[in-house]
Amino acid sequence: MRDITFAKGHGTRNDFVVFTDQAGMLDLEPVEVRFLCDRRGGVGADGLLRAVRGKHIAEWEGDPDVWFMDYRNADGSIAEMCGNGVRVFVRYLYESGLVNEREVTIGTRAGARHAVLLPDDRVRVGMGPVRLHEGLLGPTVPITVLDGALVERTWDAQPVDVGNPHAVAFTDDIGVLDLTRQPLWPAGEFPLGVNAEFVRVHNEGHVGMRVYERGVGETESCGTGTVAVAAASAARLGLEIGAEERRIRVDVPGGAVVVGLSRPESDGPLMATLTGPAQLVFRGKIVIPDLG
Amino acid sequence: MRDITFAKGHGTRNDFVVFTDQAGMLDLEPVEVRFLCDRRGGVGADGLLRAVRGKHIAEWEGDPDVWFMDYRNADGSIAEMCGNGVRVFVRYLYESGLVNEREVTIGTRAGARHAVLLPDDRVRVGMGPVRLHEGLLGPTVPITVLDGALVERTWDAQPVDVGNPHAVAFTDDIGVLDLTRQPLWPAGEFPLGVNAEFVRVHNEGHVGMRVYERGVGETESCGTGTVAVAAASAARLGLEIGAEERRIRVDVPGGAVVVGLSRPESDGPLMATLTGPAQLVFRGKIVIPDLG
Repeated sequence: MRDITFAKGHGTRNDFVVFTDQAGMLDLEPVEVRFLCDRRGGVGADGLLRAVRGKHIAEWEGDPDVWFMDYRNADGSIAEMCGNGVRVFVRYLYESGLVNEREVTIGTRAGARHAVLLPDDRVRVGMGPVRLHEGLLGPTVPITVLDGALVERTWDAQPVDVGNPHAVAFTDDIGVLDLTRQPLWPAGEFPLGVNAEFVRVHNEGHVGMRVYERGVGETESCGTGTVAVAAASAARLGLEIGAEERRIRVDVPGGAVVVGLSRPESDGPLMATLTGPAQLVFRGKIVIPDLG
Repeated sequence: MRDITFAKGHGTRNDFVVFTDQAGMLDLEPVEVRFLCDRRGGVGADGLLRAVRGKHIAEWEGDPDVWFMDYRNADGSIAEMCGNGVRVFVRYLYESGLVNEREVTIGTRAGARHAVLLPDDRVRVGMGPVRLHEGLLGPTVPITVLDGALVERTWDAQPVDVGNPHAVAFTDDIGVLDLTRQPLWPAGEFPLGVNAEFVRVHNEGHVGMRVYERGVGETESCGTGTVAVAAASAARLGLEIGAEERRIRVDVPGGAVVVGLSRPESDGPLMATLTGPAQLVFRGKIVIPDLG
């Protein structure tokens, strides 16, 4: 049995249980993560965020006193990064008095990330490099889903790497796609699976998307997915990205975020920031039972 | 803005937010109920249970000092009774020190209900009368759903009234039914909709069921549904029900309950009790924002 004091929060309706473990004593087992994330038998969330000092994380080689975001998916597995989770994490650190400045650097399994709490409920966070690439079998990858009339439709999707794999398909018909089933792609491509985004371009500064998340299904938001979509949209529209950040609003079913794209070094990678809402909704106390 | 201190609990994975309003000052608006029951933007639950003294409920004519269960569905609407909710409500009253005895009478919109906290995590509650009746167009009502091979199958279902309407269909194939779509019945029957149960009889003391709840979809449990199923199963098996309670275990996807059936007066109605688990999972505090 362990007592946990936690907060629950969300960013564009991607939701998280967050708790503090200053001394690194609460490295939860997958079964405990699943319990906490169970929406009926536990607290309920898409993932769990443990705020722990970097020195307690074996693979962290940076500042030992940094607050490290130990992120777990609801199924108990470890994930490197979560664009919505990191905003909620920073909001939690600030509102809990764990940091006192509105600019904060945190540790993640994808490296250090810099974040800024804006005057409203939004948080801006550095998302690191974004890389458009070719498929294994061709420059794009055909992605097939059913439309509203249950007819198969296929688009040439742009593979994008945001630390995790994405495939971005452009279509004006995103509203009628049937995303209750997993999209299909040719055998050989995406051996570890892919997050599939379907994008409607409104103009060069505004797109809308839906997403089928790898291993989850359709979700109301996917932070790294919005970054992949912004980068693919900029490339498709031929936008020049230089040292000055270019901003693209990305509407998701759960809300809206703004992705900033820049290329700080002319021969360097495209870099992304993600700005969006992050709210704490309630605080609670729970006893995690012995779960064998 | 209102501050609420609440508990979250469930019975066979039918889950509820519960809070105390001794003075009758927190009669929440439907929009506030929807906020609290929102699984991503609020706390998340199938329903909300407000513990309020009977004297503050206009339609309550019984003991003014009784704890009244003001039950709301997640969509903000009022419901008379909820077999799983009432067990969680009684568990909450006891664990919060609002009642000191393990036997308690509470008020509900369906009338006074007597409950007993058993030594383990189970609660037994009186569910009032159960009435088997005919359909409007015949003694039974044909209910149609798709099976696992997406073939339409139709059963003659038994209408049962447990304060709310049920239709109980018997089939050994409950595991393969496709309950992602609403079951169909002839126009004219069940003008207010119906909860449809699909039952496999193991023996005269043990059945298993799945349920499609009116206006909700398939759920892991429905308390009044288990009562309807037990009563219909007893009738189908020709069990004699007298003054002594006869018990039937009903397995639901979220767990198992026991329904007790008796006929205290030989010319009176069949009466039911429902015994099942009821657990509080965590406690929390939330600020309900102004929701316009």
